Amino acid sequence: MLKHNSILNLDTDERMHIGTYLLEQINDYMTHIRGVRVSPELSVDEVAEYVRRISFEHPVSAREAIYHILEGLRQYQVHTPHPRYFGLYNPRPNFMGIMADTITAAFNPQLAAWSHAPVAVEIENYVLKEIASKFGYSAEAADGTFTTGGAEANLTAVLTALVHYFPSYAKEGLRSLPTHPVMYASAESHHSLVKAARSCGLGTDSLRIITTDSEMHIDVPALHHQIQVDRAAGYTPFLIIATGGTTGAGAIDPINEIANLAEREQLWLHVDAAYGGASVFAPEMLDLLHGIDRADSITFDAHKWMSVPMGAGIYITRHKDILHRTFSITADYMPKEGVDLDVIDPFTHSIQWSRRFIGLKVYLSLVTAGWEGYRSMVQHQTEMGNRLRRELACSNWKVVNDTILPVVCFTDFNIQSKIQSNFASFICQEILRSGQAWISVYEINKVPVLRACITNYDSTEEDIMVLMELLNGARAEYLKRHPNGLS
Amino acid sequence: MLKHNSILNLDTDERMHIGTYLLEQINDYMTHIRGVRVSPELSVDEVAEYVRRISFEHPVSAREAIYHILEGLRQYQVHTPHPRYFGLYNPRPNFMGIMADTITAAFNPQLAAWSHAPVAVEIENYVLKEIASKFGYSAEAADGTFTTGGAEANLTAVLTALVHYFPSYAKEGLRSLPTHPVMYASAESHHSLVKAARSCGLGTDSLRIITTDSEMHIDVPALHHQIQVDRAAGYTPFLIIATGGTTGAGAIDPINEIANLAEREQLWLHVDAAYGGASVFAPEMLDLLHGIDRADSITFDAHKWMSVPMGAGIYITRHKDILHRTFSITADYMPKEGVDLDVIDPFTHSIQWSRRFIGLKVYLSLVTAGWEGYRSMVQHQTEMGNRLRRELACSNWKVVNDTILPVVCFTDFNIQSKIQSNFASFICQEILRSGQAWISVYEINKVPVLRACITNYDSTEEDIMVLMELLNGARAEYLKRHPNGLS
Repeated sequence: MLKHNSILNLDTDERMHIGTYLLEQINDYMTHIRGVRVSPELSVDEVAEYVRRISFEHPVSAREAIYHILEGLRQYQVHTPHPRYFGLYNPRPNFMGIMADTITAAFNPQLAAWSHAPVAVEIENYVLKEIASKFGYSAEAADGTFTTGGAEANLTAVLTALVHYFPSYAKEGLRSLPTHPVMYASAESHHSLVKAARSCGLGTDSLRIITTDSEMHIDVPALHHQIQVDRAAGYTPFLIIATGGTTGAGAIDPINEIANLAEREQLWLHVDAAYGGASVFAPEMLDLLHGIDRADSITFDAHKWMSVPMGAGIYITRHKDILHRTFSITADYMPKEGVDLDVIDPFTHSIQWSRRFIGLKVYLSLVTAGWEGYRSMVQHQTEMGNRLRRELACSNWKVVNDTILPVVCFTDFNIQSKIQSNFASFICQEILRSGQAWISVYEINKVPVLRACITNYDSTEEDIMVLMELLNGARAEYLKRHPNGLS
Repeated sequence: MLKHNSILNLDTDERMHIGTYLLEQINDYMTHIRGVRVSPELSVDEVAEYVRRISFEHPVSAREAIYHILEGLRQYQVHTPHPRYFGLYNPRPNFMGIMADTITAAFNPQLAAWSHAPVAVEIENYVLKEIASKFGYSAEAADGTFTTGGAEANLTAVLTALVHYFPSYAKEGLRSLPTHPVMYASAESHHSLVKAARSCGLGTDSLRIITTDSEMHIDVPALHHQIQVDRAAGYTPFLIIATGGTTGAGAIDPINEIANLAEREQLWLHVDAAYGGASVFAPEMLDLLHGIDRADSITFDAHKWMSVPMGAGIYITRHKDILHRTFSITADYMPKEGVDLDVIDPFTHSIQWSRRFIGLKVYLSLVTAGWEGYRSMVQHQTEMGNRLRRELACSNWKVVNDTILPVVCFTDFNIQSKIQSNFASFICQEILRSGQAWISVYEINKVPVLRACITNYDSTEEDIMVLMELLNGARAEYLKRHPNGLS
């Protein structure tokens, strides 16, 4: 019979042995990532069978288990750390971020009470204040919380805005209100807002989806009009969500203009800058989010453009007491050592209770790369995006979105004119099948186009050129098969 | 000027160098943990100053940064991995769990779409089904999702129960309902339910707090009565939450009896077994949670008694379609490769959207320790709890809670009779000041008592004896200072 301590309680040599083996494997993965297929073959049965190959009734050695997992991940995942993963906003995690998650797991600090993990809480506070300052908030007024990601940060925004406008929401709930609250976001905003509308009890009908203009920005006159319509119909508008870098096309809503409207209409303004927020790290891009300092709250995901491992979401607000009013609870079983100290227990400021030390990967990345390192990274990726646009133009592809963020949506001009709706999906499948790169399909004005985004600090001009070759090759193949496909 | 790639993009030698240094440090921490003070001195300014010693304007080397963090954590956190941390349900993380979080950070799989991380999704499905089976659910019917922790799992339970009884909740919200929903939990239940009541729009008034009996179990007749009162007043009861191992005293509600009531009253039964759920791994303890297979949903935290790093919460239900009905959304930007496959995209089943690969630490622990390893661990900790009870009795302390879980609440019988309310807090402070162990104070029937819980697979009889010496010493000191303190 296995003793409980035979594996749960490894001795020091075993830990070094296993840890070194894993470190070598991870290092090898990061070093030779360009030799790995970016996207896997998708066979449901094969993957499920692979996973179930080891039974919990018949445990295996640590080394065997690690080998099994690493082989599984190598074969069966999209390799987001690959420099030719031109995909959603999933970065190649930087090594210090990986080390931070290892430290977090080993020291396992409990971020509920300040007194339980003072250094962890203070590190998170420090990082939050610094990032708030980058967004133009005063460090004194700013408050915030780390979240699992943008979805939790956006839900936090909806809840804080509700409590701000309807103080009885927390105790008496929505049914006690004399009026029906409604909120606003664009058709290009992140769908986590739809989830937030459900989870907070308002229901998705209370989220008014505002149309966008030709460049996929929220249509401010349409937004204004909808607010009037709702007021006239007896609803109570309380929240506008602007997006600073949409998921699809990297569009940035005119934040300052929306801030003017929100001010006039006395609404809470939340800016979902989960991805695009990092542009404030590059001084020459600061104007992109002009007006964000006027937002009541902001979502920013460090696990996107800051290249730390998932999930490191951030919610920031300039209303110092609102998180407390929304989430504060006392509980008998919580440690009392901090009661007389002038500190905030994290569980009184978030949807979560006990949680991981999320902020360490951001801190450890910042203390080694510095703001200057991030400025340089943001600039590099922006340049790579511009390079991709130039190469696409040279090869007769047409970029169809307008953003300076490295998110590029494109199609073939001639083919598009005949609305060959299967063209984008054919090209995308060809790229994925090659295993050499990952791009996706996104619909703009109901036309499917191709989408490639620079998410990796290690993507180079050579990687862009490989993508171009693949794209041009796939298009040639398409034209061979559809000789009448040109306009 | 630093180049972006000088630190974000380390070369292979640097990664090995940094990684090995960290591995040695973590191994050293785990090996020599008994020599570390369990609880830190709490000086807010000192901690804040330590954290701000490195500025993001003046980055430091990777080695310096890691040294700084590790020193900070060593000095300024409660060491939950310490074998004499007799605290809240924060375990010493097992080494395979730490390795799992490192792998997760390095491979950074994105758990939103199945097609993006098939092996990760299938691993989570496998673990969920296996754990559901342990709770007596049929593997076919069971569905679930990993969460950050119990708070998110409990909120998920409230949301699924709402959607089950009020299908219009998701779209039209609470204000559209012809009736006011109310739910029930005991006074000893976890306060995350209070947060859940706020976050879902019902408001905390809708959570009826039911009194407990002398052993801190929910008072079933009182529960039944409150349901009748609410129905008579026009409210609509929809959910009972039973607790399988309360945070304070490890009390287990009579689940089967509550299941009978829930069935008669046609209410959703959720069991919060965040900590106590692991007792099903030890066959001789199975009866403790008798009836849990009848629950509509269950919360279980692998980062508690399964000794994996935080946060690894689990929500399980036997209603196969309810997560889908609660959270399913389609979004244009999500990968489409999985559309024709018979798979479930995780983001359609949870509050979160993209998220970390939470399940790996549970899988990697289970494939190496096996169910047998966990059985043995649960037994070991239960034995240590019993040992502590015996030693307390021998030294004339009185255990005041009744549970077979290793959660021991106690006081001095003679002193308690005079209701010396500062006694418990004095003893607790003495223990914490010693740096040799960590216990806490918890109020039972408004009397503060001491609470010690075995959360660590490495706590031994010697550790129990050290705690006893500290307790007896602190009591002697108290009596010296309060010579008339005895009854």
